[in-house]
Parts: sequence; C-alpha cells; structure tokens
Amino acid sequence: MGCLLCNEEGGTVLWRDDFCRIVRIQGADYPGLCRVVTTRHVVEMTDLANDERARLMCAVFATERVLRDLFMPDKINLASFGNKVQHLHWHVIPRMQDDPHYPEPSWGPPQRAAPRGRPEIGDAVIASGLSESLNRAD
Amino acid sequence: MGCLLCNEEGGTVLWRDDFCRIVRIQGADYPGLCRVVTTRHVVEMTDLANDERARLMCAVFATERVLRDLFMPDKINLASFGNKVQHLHWHVIPRMQDDPHYPEPSWGPPQRAAPRGRPEIGDAVIASGLSESLNRAD
Repeated sequence: MGCLLCNEEGGTVLWRDDFCRIVRIQGADYPGLCRVVTTRHVVEMTDLANDERARLMCAVFATERVLRDLFMPDKINLASFGNKVQHLHWHVIPRMQDDPHYPEPSWGPPQRAAPRGRPEIGDAVIASGLSESLNRAD
Repeated sequence: MGCLLCNEEGGTVLWRDDFCRIVRIQGADYPGLCRVVTTRHVVEMTDLANDERARLMCAVFATERVLRDLFMPDKINLASFGNKVQHLHWHVIPRMQDDPHYPEPSWGPPQRAAPRGRPEIGDAVIASGLSESLNRAD
C-alpha cells in the first residue's frame, strides 16, 4: 500500500503525539504553511470517533493560533481535501494580501509573484509555540 | 458594513439554530455543495470561544456525514477560506471522480465538463438528514 503520508512525514515535524503530527512545508510562496496529519491511515473526518475528531481539530486550531501570532496574516485558510493523497491531513495557511494567489485560494489562479524580503520565522519558533499551546491543553 | 453573509443567507437554508446555518448552493458542477455559516460576524475560527468552535465543527461534520450518506462521494472536501467574504463559513463539498476539477480542488484548474444525468437529490432530503443528526446531538 503506497500511501505517501503513511510512508513519509510529509514535511518538517514541528510537534507530534501518538495520534497526529504537525509538519511545516517551507517554500517561498507560503512560508508559514503547515499541515496536520493523522498518524494512522484514515480518509475522512467522519471516519474518526468523536473524541478523535475533537483531538485533531484541537491541533488544527492550535496551529492556526500560533501562525496568527507569528505571521500576523491577513487571513487564515483551512482545508482538508485528500483527493490525491487519501490520508487525512489539514492545510493551515497564513494568507497575505501580497501572496501569489490572494484573494483566491492558494490552489486557484496565480495573481502575482511571491513577495521577497519578509523576515524569516524559524521552525523552532513555531515548534515552541505549538508545544506551549498543545502540551498544556490536557 | 456590507458583509454579504450578514445581509444574506448565502444559499437555501437547510438547517439553522441561533448560532449557525447550513445552506445549499445548488449548481450543475457541485450539486451537493453546502456551506456552514455563523450567524454573527466572526472572521477566524480562533476568534470563537472553545465551545463555539466545537459547536460549529459539529455542524460541519454532521453535514459531511449526511452528504456522504446521500451522495456517496469519492471524497469529501472541507475548506474555510474567507479571503473575499471575511465572515466565517465552511465549504462541505462531495467530490466525484468525474466532477469538473477532480482530483484538483474545486478552486483549481478545470479538468473536464460537468457530468450529466445524475439523479437529483432534493433540499428536503438533505434537510431531513441534518435535522435528524443535529437535533438529537444535545
């Protein structure tokens, strides 16, 4: 069974527990893009038990909170598609008015080149925010 | 303040309580497309209180469950962007392998014409499923 997200982390791991991981996919277009990925192979949110759904969304919203605080985006975009990789994962994307697709979704038609010269925010800073938020949640 | 989703329902209302509504946006491309919209003007999920977030996601996942049962989609897509209309709303989209964009997101590049001849599923059937699911949740 060749599931990409069963076989690979899918990015730089910033936080994990036994149920899910939060990874960063760093690129020039969307430097704050993170994904929240379940550990086990599940396809849809409604394939999870109620408490698992709550647990996964808790990680998604903690990611949103940390990315808002650090990147000060004009908008947060959240999405779970899985049409190509059918292993449950959430995209958490800080959007900026000068990013390559705004106000279209980042999967939509390009609007402009990616801006340059923004201060970089390191993995460790995001990881620290996630850890502070999620490790006290229980 | 001209917020579209403060001033209009944004679709055919299938279910509502005092906190949110579930509307259907019926079109040839995505006949099952529903949106879950907060009643009050809120921008981001992390602007809501914890219990409100849970309540909104409960409506989103109930919509997913009902649309899965009725449309038998190849995949469910969930997304909350709000770049253009900054009033919290979730897209719940049953995706089919022969729909106009599959396996791209429905905001991505078109892949083919919309299929024809699928049996229609009426608003009342979806509304009944939502009501059964959500009105027993408490």
